Amino acid sequence: MLQELFSPSVQHVLDLVGIFVFAISGALLAVRKNFDVFGIAVLAEATALGGGLFRDLVIGAVPPAAFTDLGYFSTPLLAALLVFFLHPHVERIQVGVNVFDAAGLGLFCVAGTTKAYEYGLGLPQSAVLGLVTAVGGGVVRDVLANEVPSLLRWDRDLYAVPAMVGATMVVLCIRYDALSPFTSGLAVVTAFVLRLLAMRYHWRAPRAWNRRSTVTEEETPQIP
Amino acid sequence: MLQELFSPSVQHVLDLVGIFVFAISGALLAVRKNFDVFGIAVLAEATALGGGLFRDLVIGAVPPAAFTDLGYFSTPLLAALLVFFLHPHVERIQVGVNVFDAAGLGLFCVAGTTKAYEYGLGLPQSAVLGLVTAVGGGVVRDVLANEVPSLLRWDRDLYAVPAMVGATMVVLCIRYDALSPFTSGLAVVTAFVLRLLAMRYHWRAPRAWNRRSTVTEEETPQIP
Amino acid sequence: MLQELFSPSVQHVLDLVGIFVFAISGALLAVRKNFDVFGIAVLAEATALGGGLFRDLVIGAVPPAAFTDLGYFSTPLLAALLVFFLHPHVERIQVGVNVFDAAGLGLFCVAGTTKAYEYGLGLPQSAVLGLVTAVGGGVVRDVLANEVPSLLRWDRDLYAVPAMVGATMVVLCIRYDALSPFTSGLAVVTAFVLRLLAMRYHWRAPRAWNRRSTVTEEETPQIP
Repeated sequence: MLQELFSPSVQHVLDLVGIFVFAISGALLAVRKNFDVFGIAVLAEATALGGGLFRDLVIGAVPPAAFTDLGYFSTPLLAALLVFFLHPHVERIQVGVNVFDAAGLGLFCVAGTTKAYEYGLGLPQSAVLGLVTAVGGGVVRDVLANEVPSLLRWDRDLYAVPAMVGATMVVLCIRYDALSPFTSGLAVVTAFVLRLLAMRYHWRAPRAWNRRSTVTEEETPQIP
Repeated sequence: MLQELFSPSVQHVLDLVGIFVFAISGALLAVRKNFDVFGIAVLAEATALGGGLFRDLVIGAVPPAAFTDLGYFSTPLLAALLVFFLHPHVERIQVGVNVFDAAGLGLFCVAGTTKAYEYGLGLPQSAVLGLVTAVGGGVVRDVLANEVPSLLRWDRDLYAVPAMVGATMVVLCIRYDALSPFTSGLAVVTAFVLRLLAMRYHWRAPRAWNRRSTVTEEETPQIP
Repeated sequence: MLQELFSPSVQHVLDLVGIFVFAISGALLAVRKNFDVFGIAVLAEATALGGGLFRDLVIGAVPPAAFTDLGYFSTPLLAALLVFFLHPHVERIQVGVNVFDAAGLGLFCVAGTTKAYEYGLGLPQSAVLGLVTAVGGGVVRDVLANEVPSLLRWDRDLYAVPAMVGATMVVLCIRYDALSPFTSGLAVVTAFVLRLLAMRYHWRAPRAWNRRSTVTEEETPQIP
C-alpha cells in the first residue's frame, strides 16, 4: 500500500482534532435548535463521524473506524459537554470555531482520499470519496436538524471547493508518485487556507445561469 | 460466541413484536402527515427496520436481516394495513401504542447490543450500537416525514436514556460473564419500565446550561 | 448465475440513460430551491446514484458501482451542467423529462431486482430491493432538499406501483425460469407505460380509510 504519511500517532491526533472541531459545529447547531443534552450529543457525534462512516461503508471497511476506535467516539462527547456548559463562550469564539472547522475540512479531505485509495478505489473515485468524507458530516448534521444543508445553499461561502482542491492534490501526488508527509501536509494547508480565504472574502458559487437576471428570484424570496 | 439468550423462536417472536410496534408508530405519523397508503407502508417499514438495517451495515452482516427474513419485512406491512383501515381506533389507543413502543425500545436495545458484540465489536461500541438500533428507526421516520427527530427535541420525554441503561446492563453482564436469558430479560424490563416512568412523569433532559435563565429562549419561540 | 440479460454494452448504456434522467430531476429541484452550482451537482449525483448505492451496500457489493464505474459518476455532472446553463429550456420540456424519468424508473426496477437476485437474495426480497433502487434516489433528493419525499405524498401521481409491477414481473420470470432479454424488456416497458398512464390520468393512491370523510382533513390544510 502507501507508506504511512505521518507516524500513526500524529495521524491519529490530527484525526481527533478534525473530529473535535466538526463535533463543536454540530453541538452549536443543536443548541441553536433548542435541543436537549442528548440531542446535542447526537448531533455532535453525527457531524463528526458521519462523513467517515459513509466512506468506510462504501469501501467495505467494516466495522467502521467510528465503531472500533473508542477515541473517535468519545471526542464528540467531550465537544458536546463543552458546548453544553460553555456555549455562550463557544459562540463568542465563533471565528475560532470556523478556523478549526476549516482545519478539519483540510485534514478530512486528505485522510479520506488516502484511505479510499488504500482500499483499492481508482484515483478519481478516491478524490470524490475524500470530498464526501470532508463534507458528509455537515450534511448529516443539517438533515438531522431539519435544515437545508448549508453545503447546497448559494448564500454560503465556498465549502466544497477547498476540499475538492485538497483531494485533487492528493490524487495527483499519488499519480506522480510524489505522496509524502510533506505533500500531504501541503494539501491539508492548501484546503485550509482556501477555506479561510473563502470565508474572509465571502467567495460564493454561482446559481443557475439564467436565474440571475430574471424575476424568478424576487418572486421566491421566502425560499430559505 | 454467546449462547443463545432465548430459544431462537422466542427471540424471533420478540423481534417481530418490536418491529410491529415501531411500525405502528411510523404508520400513525404517516397518517398524521396525510401520506397515501404507500407512504404509510414506507414509513412503517423504515421505522421498524431502519435501526437494525444500520446496525447490520455497520457490523458487516450483509445482506441485513431485514432483507433475508421475510417475516421482518411483512410485519410492518401488516401494521400499515391495520393503521390504514383502523387509524382512529389505533389513535384512540395511543397509550397502548406508547406502551408497546416502550417494549420495542427495551427489546431492540438488548438485541442490538448482543448482536453487535457477537460480530466482534468492543463492549462500549456494542452498547452504542444497541442504542442506535433502538432509536435509529424513529430518527429515520422523522427525517423522512421532514420533521425534527423527536429524539433530539427537548420537549419530549426521555427516550434515549432507558435504551442506554438497557444496553449498558447487557455489556456489564457480558463483562462479568453473567449474561443469561434472565439477566437479558431484566435489561429489557428495566429499559421498558424506565421509559414508562419517563412518559408518566414527563422526565425531560436539560437544554444547554446558560440557556435556561437567559432571554435567548423567549427571543426564539418560533424554533420548532 | 443468470445469463446476461442484454449484451453488457447495451445494459451499460441503459443504466447511463436512467442515471442521466434521474440526475436531471435532481438538478431541476436544486435550481428551484435556489442552490448554487455545487448544490446542483450534489443533488444530481445523489438522485441518480442514491438508489443503486443503497442496494449495493445492502447486498454487500462494495465498493458500489457508483464508485467504481467512472461513467456512473460523470453522467450526473453532465446533467447538472446542462441544467445549470439551460434550465429554462429544460423546464420547458418538463414533459420530456417526466417521460425519461419514467423510463429510468422502469430500467432501474428491473436492473435492481436482477442484481439483488444475482447476489443471493430471495425472490421477494429481490423485488423489494429493485423497488428501492428505483425510488430511493428520489427520496434522497427530497430529503437533502428538505422537502417531504414526493414518493410519500398523496397528492402525487402513482410512482411506486409501476416499479412494483416491473420488479414483480422480473421475479415471476425468474421463478418460472422465463427470464430473457425479451421478458426483461417487457417488464421495463410495462413499468414505463404504467407510470406514463399514472401521470396522464392522475392516478393516485388512497389515504387512510376513515380520513376521507372526516373533518380532520379540513382542519389540517396547512400540512404540506
